[in-house]
Amino acid sequence: MAQKQLTLAQCAAMVGGECLGDPDLVIEGVGDVQLAGSRDISFVTRADMLPAAEISSASALIVPRDTPPLQKACIFVDNPVLAITKLHQYFLQKEFQASGVHATAVMGNDCQLPKQVRVGANCVLGDRVKLGARVCLHPGVVVGDDVSIGEDCEIFPRVTIYSKTTLGSRVIVHAGSVIGSDGYGYVTDEKGHHLKRPHVGSVVIEDDVEIGANVCVDRATFGETRIRRGAKIDNLVQIAHNVEVGEDNLIVALVGIAGSCKLGRHVVLGGNAGIAGHLTLGDNVMVGAKAGVHNNVASGSIVAGYPAVERGKWARIQAISNRLPDIYQDVKMLKKEVARLLTLVETERKNQE
Amino acid sequence: MAQKQLTLAQCAAMVGGECLGDPDLVIEGVGDVQLAGSRDISFVTRADMLPAAEISSASALIVPRDTPPLQKACIFVDNPVLAITKLHQYFLQKEFQASGVHATAVMGNDCQLPKQVRVGANCVLGDRVKLGARVCLHPGVVVGDDVSIGEDCEIFPRVTIYSKTTLGSRVIVHAGSVIGSDGYGYVTDEKGHHLKRPHVGSVVIEDDVEIGANVCVDRATFGETRIRRGAKIDNLVQIAHNVEVGEDNLIVALVGIAGSCKLGRHVVLGGNAGIAGHLTLGDNVMVGAKAGVHNNVASGSIVAGYPAVERGKWARIQAISNRLPDIYQDVKMLKKEVARLLTLVETERKNQE
Amino acid sequence: MAQKQLTLAQCAAMVGGECLGDPDLVIEGVGDVQLAGSRDISFVTRADMLPAAEISSASALIVPRDTPPLQKACIFVDNPVLAITKLHQYFLQKEFQASGVHATAVMGNDCQLPKQVRVGANCVLGDRVKLGARVCLHPGVVVGDDVSIGEDCEIFPRVTIYSKTTLGSRVIVHAGSVIGSDGYGYVTDEKGHHLKRPHVGSVVIEDDVEIGANVCVDRATFGETRIRRGAKIDNLVQIAHNVEVGEDNLIVALVGIAGSCKLGRHVVLGGNAGIAGHLTLGDNVMVGAKAGVHNNVASGSIVAGYPAVERGKWARIQAISNRLPDIYQDVKMLKKEVARLLTLVETERKNQE
Repeated sequence: MAQKQLTLAQCAAMVGGECLGDPDLVIEGVGDVQLAGSRDISFVTRADMLPAAEISSASALIVPRDTPPLQKACIFVDNPVLAITKLHQYFLQKEFQASGVHATAVMGNDCQLPKQVRVGANCVLGDRVKLGARVCLHPGVVVGDDVSIGEDCEIFPRVTIYSKTTLGSRVIVHAGSVIGSDGYGYVTDEKGHHLKRPHVGSVVIEDDVEIGANVCVDRATFGETRIRRGAKIDNLVQIAHNVEVGEDNLIVALVGIAGSCKLGRHVVLGGNAGIAGHLTLGDNVMVGAKAGVHNNVASGSIVAGYPAVERGKWARIQAISNRLPDIYQDVKMLKKEVARLLTLVETERKNQE
Repeated sequence: MAQKQLTLAQCAAMVGGECLGDPDLVIEGVGDVQLAGSRDISFVTRADMLPAAEISSASALIVPRDTPPLQKACIFVDNPVLAITKLHQYFLQKEFQASGVHATAVMGNDCQLPKQVRVGANCVLGDRVKLGARVCLHPGVVVGDDVSIGEDCEIFPRVTIYSKTTLGSRVIVHAGSVIGSDGYGYVTDEKGHHLKRPHVGSVVIEDDVEIGANVCVDRATFGETRIRRGAKIDNLVQIAHNVEVGEDNLIVALVGIAGSCKLGRHVVLGGNAGIAGHLTLGDNVMVGAKAGVHNNVASGSIVAGYPAVERGKWARIQAISNRLPDIYQDVKMLKKEVARLLTLVETERKNQE
Repeated sequence: MAQKQLTLAQCAAMVGGECLGDPDLVIEGVGDVQLAGSRDISFVTRADMLPAAEISSASALIVPRDTPPLQKACIFVDNPVLAITKLHQYFLQKEFQASGVHATAVMGNDCQLPKQVRVGANCVLGDRVKLGARVCLHPGVVVGDDVSIGEDCEIFPRVTIYSKTTLGSRVIVHAGSVIGSDGYGYVTDEKGHHLKRPHVGSVVIEDDVEIGANVCVDRATFGETRIRRGAKIDNLVQIAHNVEVGEDNLIVALVGIAGSCKLGRHVVLGGNAGIAGHLTLGDNVMVGAKAGVHNNVASGSIVAGYPAVERGKWARIQAISNRLPDIYQDVKMLKKEVARLLTLVETERKNQE
């Protein structure tokens, strides 16, 4: 495959930036400042990265709009990371290499597969599985009955997708993740034994969702668990039965979302945050790392701590907590002084009587 | 397979409830209020669900004992969720479909398999593996040497069971879980390097245990790690070497239990709780979500926070923590006032001398 | 294979201990006090274990240097756990059993495999994979293109190693772990959609690293994620893109390390601790269980809590937090008394005017 090339001017046009330097300069790839080669374009996000960037091997740089002119060819943009990401995606994009179904894959009955597909070694598909065009199942993926996977999905090795799960288009699922296992639902009987509640619902993953490695998404008790369009989920996250993750949510590693929570759009959950069951988080809610949310959160709120409170309040409480040893001493001292004062005043009064 | 049917009277008998309406009404399944069809029975757990339940498509409802009479046929019970679960299990129960060992499965030597068994595609079994009647190994399960799996177990795709592990009857393990990996045990040598302690113990999972997806249960250093009868473990839980999980325990997602802990009966660990090593938790202990337990916990205790304390105390401390900014201001103000008072009183005394 | 044997004198020499009792006593294995057989040597770490050890079946004991003479044959050492570990490793060590590549394994092109190798059933290797001597890939391991695995590595079932990953020698990876998945890196575009940043870096795991089960190690955005020599990582740990884990680090279960963190040597992270992105932890840093680190930590520091502070300070703050209800009452009482005092003093002054 021939090396892709863009001129500096083409790069600038692609990212909506202004170009300084030879517009015909040929760019063949992207690298960060440390690793860029002489035909790469690199990028700078902060002024203190400029000296290293100037002496790097990169032939051109993407820099913030307000950067003073540099020796190297430059493209000035509002958001350097966004610009470099667009260029990088362009350079890395490859035509889909259909290889069909590997000889060792095991296929169920009545599956619907397009010609443009890759089903890797040792994949196991159940009955009535539908794969969209350009789906890639890496080796060892197990797909249950009645699963539908949309176009351009990439499912990494050893993902398990339980029966009746639906994936939209351009979904990425990293290795080891489990989609559609039974929710954690029991009811305690007369003897104190926990009886398993059947989980007959499903999981729906919408378009453009990315799911990290070793993530768990449980199927619904009834109805569905749903991850909406564009949500991005990091590794080792637990999403319980009947949860709705909102559009464009960002959910960082080791988060747990308990059953039946509903998250609005553009919610961000920091690493290892936890959301108790049956809660609603509004649009644009941000939850701090390790926070534990026990109440509904209104749209636009930023919360932190456990139990989570408004982040500014949490920061004030933490700051004062750090002074607790001093406060404690102050209170002890005050108690003594007030006692002494009381004695003084009482003595005074008696003397005057 | 013919659709299972029960009359309303049969349903009532099965769940020990009182029936109101046509006792011969035919029920063919279970649904929640939103999704129940016209031949389903549904259920209500709280009075505020009644209006939606009355206009649902369900032909009958399971309701709490004290519910006023409804338009729809009803069964009155003490515990609607328990009742609906029993009916749901009845309707979903299917005869075991033995399919034998899939052609792509790889079997070790001297394995003992009953006729009534399902060993899925690409399973790999070691030597001397014993499977009980009606065991189902889904595709891609890997089972080590000398593993014994009791009757009616269901092991979902890509579970790994290390050698010498024992599972009782009716155990369910969800996809991606790992049973019997080496415990995290090292000893630091003279150079500061961590030497691996051999883990020659095993894991025993008793009857009726359910283990979620991507759970880890480590084998013992010596002796055994044991999960006792009826314990239910959610996704992404870590159970370290030599731990004993008690009967009917409930362990929610992302919990970590460090080495050699012993849990009594009916212990409940909330999501992302952590238990430090070598601790004993008595019967009926409840540990709050995200709590960190650093001391033994007496039977019947409810603890929360980190380090965990009695839950009522924790709640009081949290409530007061939220007022810390006010308390801090009060203390500052008090210091000023007391200083002023002191000056006043001293001045007074001097004046009088 | 003949049973390995050592005399008591040989055992003592191997662990640098002093031997009391018949130096020709034959030892054939290691057991803990509860489980040791009559040909085993056992060990005691604390004085209160001695009575049980004396009546155990073990034929000899490893005991701390200052232990008074016992009835049983003894070896006196500085560190009994280190000594028993060395003996145990000796007794368990077996010659590597090469079995070659299993018939069901799927091999890519241009792989380099030594004669002394085990590639288990259903393993899938990409192109140009290099395996060192005595590498054991258990069943179901998936290895991407251009991966290099050093000598004497043991990779347990269903591990996924993405392309371009490098493992040193004597690396152990437990079942279900994922090495080299894409980092969690997005940039938000003009519409509020999160664009995936390409992850073109790699993962390097150095010699003598052990990685637990269901761990995730992400590949770098550019450059590399690196786990240095001798680090030991427990189950369900998340290591993000571009992280450097230091030599001989101990990272306990359910820890999350965010992107681009650099850890020094001999760092210890307690269970479920979290490290925010782009931080540096110096040598010998210890982070308490469940701590959340938001700032760089200087070498030798011990921190705890969230946000993490110096551990002694954290302990004092926790101790005083537990008295917050009392402090709150004290402040309320002080406010009343000071108000009363003020009234008294003011009245006094008025009376005197």
